[in-house]
Amino acid sequence: MLTYTLDKDKGHLSRELYKALKNDIEEGKLKRGEKLPSKRTFARNCSVSTITVQNAYDQLVSEGYIKAIEKKGYYVSDSVVKKKSKVSYLVEEDEETTIVELPDLSNNRVNVDNFPFSIWSRIMRKTMAEKQNLLLSPMKTEGVYELRRAISHHLSSFRGMAVSPSQIIVGAGTEYLYSLIIQILGRDRLYALEDPGYMKLERIYNANGVKSIKVELDDKGLSSSTLEKSNADIAHISPNHHYPTGITMPLDRRYEILSWAAKEDERYIIEDDYDSEFRVSRNPVPTLYTLDTSGSVIYMNTFSKSLASTVRISYMVLPDSLAERFKDNFSFYSSTVSSFEQYTLASFIEEGFFEKHINRMRLYYIRQRQAVLSLLSSSLMKDKCSVIENDSGLHFILRLNTVLSDKEVKEILYREGIKISALSDYSRSSSISHDFIISYSNLDMDAFKKALRILSEII
Amino acid sequence: MLTYTLDKDKGHLSRELYKALKNDIEEGKLKRGEKLPSKRTFARNCSVSTITVQNAYDQLVSEGYIKAIEKKGYYVSDSVVKKKSKVSYLVEEDEETTIVELPDLSNNRVNVDNFPFSIWSRIMRKTMAEKQNLLLSPMKTEGVYELRRAISHHLSSFRGMAVSPSQIIVGAGTEYLYSLIIQILGRDRLYALEDPGYMKLERIYNANGVKSIKVELDDKGLSSSTLEKSNADIAHISPNHHYPTGITMPLDRRYEILSWAAKEDERYIIEDDYDSEFRVSRNPVPTLYTLDTSGSVIYMNTFSKSLASTVRISYMVLPDSLAERFKDNFSFYSSTVSSFEQYTLASFIEEGFFEKHINRMRLYYIRQRQAVLSLLSSSLMKDKCSVIENDSGLHFILRLNTVLSDKEVKEILYREGIKISALSDYSRSSSISHDFIISYSNLDMDAFKKALRILSEII
Repeated sequence: MLTYTLDKDKGHLSRELYKALKNDIEEGKLKRGEKLPSKRTFARNCSVSTITVQNAYDQLVSEGYIKAIEKKGYYVSDSVVKKKSKVSYLVEEDEETTIVELPDLSNNRVNVDNFPFSIWSRIMRKTMAEKQNLLLSPMKTEGVYELRRAISHHLSSFRGMAVSPSQIIVGAGTEYLYSLIIQILGRDRLYALEDPGYMKLERIYNANGVKSIKVELDDKGLSSSTLEKSNADIAHISPNHHYPTGITMPLDRRYEILSWAAKEDERYIIEDDYDSEFRVSRNPVPTLYTLDTSGSVIYMNTFSKSLASTVRISYMVLPDSLAERFKDNFSFYSSTVSSFEQYTLASFIEEGFFEKHINRMRLYYIRQRQAVLSLLSSSLMKDKCSVIENDSGLHFILRLNTVLSDKEVKEILYREGIKISALSDYSRSSSISHDFIISYSNLDMDAFKKALRILSEII
Repeated sequence: MLTYTLDKDKGHLSRELYKALKNDIEEGKLKRGEKLPSKRTFARNCSVSTITVQNAYDQLVSEGYIKAIEKKGYYVSDSVVKKKSKVSYLVEEDEETTIVELPDLSNNRVNVDNFPFSIWSRIMRKTMAEKQNLLLSPMKTEGVYELRRAISHHLSSFRGMAVSPSQIIVGAGTEYLYSLIIQILGRDRLYALEDPGYMKLERIYNANGVKSIKVELDDKGLSSSTLEKSNADIAHISPNHHYPTGITMPLDRRYEILSWAAKEDERYIIEDDYDSEFRVSRNPVPTLYTLDTSGSVIYMNTFSKSLASTVRISYMVLPDSLAERFKDNFSFYSSTVSSFEQYTLASFIEEGFFEKHINRMRLYYIRQRQAVLSLLSSSLMKDKCSVIENDSGLHFILRLNTVLSDKEVKEILYREGIKISALSDYSRSSSISHDFIISYSNLDMDAFKKALRILSEII
């Protein structure tokens, strides 16, 4: 709302107002073509009479700063020459909204065609029409009950997990939930992270003032002996589908890791199950959470992968003792997810749309993968590479038979306008090489074809 | 999605499936009346033939566990007797969604009638129809540009602040933004908090592993001498409308505090301007951010007060040097607010609805306050109390002429089913007494009348 504080003692209120407006127009705070408030509104805002506003407007019109359009009101003239502003915000008006992106063979962004906009829009509308009271009621720290219950049903039917809604904490993204975990488990603990693995995790722990240590994986994932050697208290892992290797930790190794955690009271496992919905084959290994009997596993998942990365809803399941600790010590926090989206997502799940969406997406991804693989096998690259996948949901590893370094491969493709990530980008180990990530969730087929052609020429 | 892992080597797949389903029905994982997947879907999920599913379903029907409804499908029977479950999540099914609340004279929740549901719903629908690509595009850590630009326009016209969109960070609530500030400014700093003030702040800093110190206010708010004595590096204050005292820090004191901050490079002020939109009188003191010339002020505000506390969108404005520091070090974080709500709010502001909403609410609150004050002045309490307010937006302080302690007053009212908070609840100082918070934003008038009657009898 446009308003000015006018010094009534000075007496010339309309002059004051005229100067303030003129200044703001010159400085660009009031933009060309911008509509000014009606005289009445403006007078009320500034606690002056409408005649004062009228006088100021008249003067500005006569000087060409603003123009009056009949029956519409007053507008800043299009022809005003702006003074050089001392503030930076005008310069930045053209900050780009959409960043022009090169096709990225490793980028697993959701395809717009696949987000269920019409259903989501309908449920959102219905929620706003029918749940107004609930939508504005204070929320629990852990999120609205309806959503936590829906998640508990989903985990039960989809993952065979028996979880009470009271163990579930909904939050604005997994990164936020990590910061809560740090608060629950303690800042003075050592967190073990997988190598290779998401490099971001290390930065997040670091930004939260917490020490972490990288622990190397073997072909079954993390082992209890390397964990034991690391002296870590907490293991942050993704056993069900490791990114980017695609490793699914086998059952024996799971029991091994669980036994590591059970040995000490304050040892915990953070089980990140971020894309379990999209496993291609249907032979899921039970989650660590399910196998655990000592209350040592925090299970995490997100709707960023299964719905859209820009819908910021994730959740974690705390074992009973930690759920209590959380309630005792952190209930003062506000929930970080809008009630509007929590209730919408709850209905989306409970009415079966989430399951339908997952089924459709799974089918879509299976077809996508087949198309990508058949493109590969009919290309000249066929004999110069191999595909490594462990039931990966949304990507596979393309291993190139080449002497070129990963850096060289990436640079050659980048010069041709194509981005790709290597497995080595996710590790500090020098032994990993020649493995590239092909994410087929939303792959640009033309770019992929082009990349195969270029690669076949240089390898 | 309902699915089971069946051991194909055992041979009796339909028997396996039958047992798994029966078990889940008995344990209550599959609820009475719940619809089972169609034979085809279920077969695909479990990687078995439909005849296998058919056999399992038939057996369960014959035993009464499920029933077939013509043209609709299979449902779990209503009459199944559940086994006592070993898991807790069934017991909790009846966790209450809406907590029955006593009327609270100090609670400043938004009135449902005042949230612009129909406009919000319309803009949300429009956003989903027209901005599908943008909605699913990766977001910057600091939030989508359109919203930051809208906020910058709002701050310019409403607060006279010249702020570039690139200085603005949008986040899921101020509490989350505090945790970012701690990461930007450092965990090893001492944070000064106001006494009286929001008790929650101390808990938030504490939970983030950061030291804070309470600094007593005088009648102008925080002073630079007490700040200096505290040895704090950072002052977290609400100078424009302090809660709960209602103090607006006068201009001289503002300069004093700014000069305290300018003395050392790494001294900062966090200026929390949480309800500036609703000031009753129109003579706003400029924000510390506006007066500051040394880049020492972080300005914060939220839409929790101006829209609804369950819409989790807040923002902060960083001085240029900190904005750069943020971009250099923390751009790896994901934005914590859904793009759907960010774009909706951006349009809501840019199309003028936010200003209209604020104007309507301000008028509503002015009337509310008048109604509450006239009720008070016509009651028997009239001469037993006084009203203290400093242009408070949404509450005032009711000072009682009583010998009763704050605790006694609260207990007497609580026994009659009415909650109230005292100023002393927000302070560790023993000198504050007899001052109670009356929040008229959504006051239960009957409860207020009743409270006045009870108070007039005991005082």
